[in-house]
Amino acid sequence: MTSYTVSELLSKDIKLVEVSVKGWVRTFRANRFLALNDGSSLQNIQCVIDFKNTEDAVLKRLTTGAAVHIKGDLVASQGKGQAVEINVNSIDVLGDSDPETYPIQPKKHSFEFLRENAHLRTRTNTFSAIMRLRSALSFAVHKYFNENGFYYMHAPIITGSDAEGAGEMFKVSKLNAKNPPLDENGAIDYSKDFFGKETNLTVSGQLEAETYAMSLGKVYTFGPTFRAENSNTSRHLSEFWMIEPEIAFLDLAGNMDLAEDFMKYVLNYILKNNREDLEFLENRLIAEDKSKPEAERNTMGLIEKLHFVIENNFKRVSYTEAIDILKNSKPNKKKKFKYPITEWGIDLQSEHERFLVEKHFKCPVIIFDYPANIKAFYMRLNDDGKTVRAMDILFPGIGEMIGGSQREERLEVLQQRMAELHIDEKELWWYLDLRKYGTAVHSGFGLGFERLVMFVTGMSNIRDVIPFPRTPQNAEF
Amino acid sequence: MTSYTVSELLSKDIKLVEVSVKGWVRTFRANRFLALNDGSSLQNIQCVIDFKNTEDAVLKRLTTGAAVHIKGDLVASQGKGQAVEINVNSIDVLGDSDPETYPIQPKKHSFEFLRENAHLRTRTNTFSAIMRLRSALSFAVHKYFNENGFYYMHAPIITGSDAEGAGEMFKVSKLNAKNPPLDENGAIDYSKDFFGKETNLTVSGQLEAETYAMSLGKVYTFGPTFRAENSNTSRHLSEFWMIEPEIAFLDLAGNMDLAEDFMKYVLNYILKNNREDLEFLENRLIAEDKSKPEAERNTMGLIEKLHFVIENNFKRVSYTEAIDILKNSKPNKKKKFKYPITEWGIDLQSEHERFLVEKHFKCPVIIFDYPANIKAFYMRLNDDGKTVRAMDILFPGIGEMIGGSQREERLEVLQQRMAELHIDEKELWWYLDLRKYGTAVHSGFGLGFERLVMFVTGMSNIRDVIPFPRTPQNAEF
Repeated sequence: MTSYTVSELLSKDIKLVEVSVKGWVRTFRANRFLALNDGSSLQNIQCVIDFKNTEDAVLKRLTTGAAVHIKGDLVASQGKGQAVEINVNSIDVLGDSDPETYPIQPKKHSFEFLRENAHLRTRTNTFSAIMRLRSALSFAVHKYFNENGFYYMHAPIITGSDAEGAGEMFKVSKLNAKNPPLDENGAIDYSKDFFGKETNLTVSGQLEAETYAMSLGKVYTFGPTFRAENSNTSRHLSEFWMIEPEIAFLDLAGNMDLAEDFMKYVLNYILKNNREDLEFLENRLIAEDKSKPEAERNTMGLIEKLHFVIENNFKRVSYTEAIDILKNSKPNKKKKFKYPITEWGIDLQSEHERFLVEKHFKCPVIIFDYPANIKAFYMRLNDDGKTVRAMDILFPGIGEMIGGSQREERLEVLQQRMAELHIDEKELWWYLDLRKYGTAVHSGFGLGFERLVMFVTGMSNIRDVIPFPRTPQNAEF
Repeated sequence: MTSYTVSELLSKDIKLVEVSVKGWVRTFRANRFLALNDGSSLQNIQCVIDFKNTEDAVLKRLTTGAAVHIKGDLVASQGKGQAVEINVNSIDVLGDSDPETYPIQPKKHSFEFLRENAHLRTRTNTFSAIMRLRSALSFAVHKYFNENGFYYMHAPIITGSDAEGAGEMFKVSKLNAKNPPLDENGAIDYSKDFFGKETNLTVSGQLEAETYAMSLGKVYTFGPTFRAENSNTSRHLSEFWMIEPEIAFLDLAGNMDLAEDFMKYVLNYILKNNREDLEFLENRLIAEDKSKPEAERNTMGLIEKLHFVIENNFKRVSYTEAIDILKNSKPNKKKKFKYPITEWGIDLQSEHERFLVEKHFKCPVIIFDYPANIKAFYMRLNDDGKTVRAMDILFPGIGEMIGGSQREERLEVLQQRMAELHIDEKELWWYLDLRKYGTAVHSGFGLGFERLVMFVTGMSNIRDVIPFPRTPQNAEF
């Protein structure tokens, strides 16, 4: 007798005598039809039980969540909704699930309740679909870079540098927190800490990735990054995964080409390989939308939105042009924007980004050449002296998906920029070395992985697209 | 004119007019032969410069480490050592490299010196080969699991649980370190910290991976883990990457099958795809061995060692049998072991593991059914009441490569084991839930990724196989 996964069994269209399959009971109805799931697929396999010849004591244990081992014959299904089913010859309960206390019942649970039960929430269709998609997206990312000559680089998580300035950092320490050693000035003496200095959790692997790009050519990171801001919103996590490619000899235009090609590849991969999960989540969204006021509903279906990105050229428009468009736009003139567009130099908000993508251009948009003073110190200054070679890529529904730039490769310009922002050169001596020895044009971008998973799954709370979310006041599990 | 990478140019066997290539000068000799590298390959491409028609000022800038843009014709090489070379038509220096101060000169540098210049060390052949191999190994890991129906799962890095007991942990905090808030007993009031509780950096994603295995079936983690032990050795890092597959309905024998199949796949992938880098590192080892006393030399070549793993069945032997073999072995009787084998129940040391692999069995070895009291609380207790279904996989040269086990799936037995070890059930309520609702046999293992990279590259210091190593007193970059 051969053992199969549910997914394998569902792909058979032949009759098979005596198959063996293990999984968890999703539902058991009419004392006869057991829906079995083992995570290999969104679909369950229907197992038809001969209840007359099965002990009552066993039938009673076939409750939602119980682990069972089923042996039987795979046959064409009599009923609707499935091509094949199993005529059960024997059923063995491996692990019971008390229906009185089991949290995951076959009914609709709120996402909030499921977050509190994050260790069990992948036992639901929605979260198993999300996490299968998350896994497939990860693989697509690695596959794309591998096929295109990039090397995967693990940037350090614990960092002695706090110069990147992307956000507030968590401190990492082994000092006695109650009685830390003090120096002669009464300050905490971090030279006595584990690493001999003050250390934090990284906010980005970019600067380290640059060191590898300037030797290996094309590299990318894909690892956890951290923000210690007290942001309790549906769009922020304290711990999230980031993808950061970095490429030597590539300018901003090339960087845009790369980002566009990359995004299209990854979304194509998902459309091709994860259709079933996507369709399930699309239907979930449609059902959810029905209970919402018209104005809040999604204007595009989930799969339609993926096609929208894949099939359109990303429109490239300078920040200056974008500001002009927004300034003269209807919502701005009619004072419909929460943040009115008044002058060149302000940062764009999500409402502006979505207007450009969804209303004005009707395609993904890349905005480039941002004002220097709203962007990071390492971005390449343009000849105008006031803009930098930055780019943001905007998607429908979600706004900014990718942020990137050509990096400042000129030593003196970088030093001046760091001085202006009071970034200590001693902190980043190694980063400056890249500009001293064989410097060259190079570029890269960052993609918050959870943002991508939200886009692909249609989930609106970022806590629902990562296994165990870390947010202010929450580090359970 | 088309731009190429060095790797692309070296794979051409045709004459190409006017190619464009960018990279860094490795060497420039006889005012004529420039060896150009761009990280795409271990090999350089030879660029032949017509020095009579090149300005002296330009020639002087062609120093090691300088970034250049070369245009020229790809032709069959006149000299030995390469099939093709570039007849240079124009050369543009993109970034100079001052030969007086540039740390990476074309000569042998000590690994220690290169560790201090970790931001530049991938500009050497050795470290570019290591990091290309590291990247390829990562991809092979993802590819294997993807092809075999596993889902990639990101386990949390910041954890509120310190129950796993795999090692000392780093504290993560946002409290004011100088004046932390205190509770009524004068202890630090972590309820006021960012996450509302005491939090640490994870030592393993296994327990969280188990929650996903018990719903999605087959999962794996591949992420950073941390140890705060003050171990300043060539085999320990404070931050390292770990691979942890976890599989529902799999017993210890199946776990062994999986681990063996996985290791062979990954090593085969490297042999097939990274031959050039492997051969370079093999030759490096041979040269290094020549300066060592006979007894310390490698008994197998690097590639031979990979074949040794791939082509042998892993010998499976119980801990009890292994102790018998070791007890009666020549080195034990002749008191050659530093740690003599005296009685059943002791932990095996590296010398014992290597004896079993290299001298006794002459193949990779899996030892299973270890004494319970030298293994973790979550391992499945055998019926003898004193051993657990643990396994360690031993490799030549390096000793333990993989540690895994079948997990204790029985609620009461797990609870008893936790009580014995004073592990608070409240800390792991979610882990116990897995045994309350649909529990089943399941297994998994952990592979320290840097251990694997050491094995494949032949490097003997773990700090040389991760981009920016974190060790006691060291978190530079």
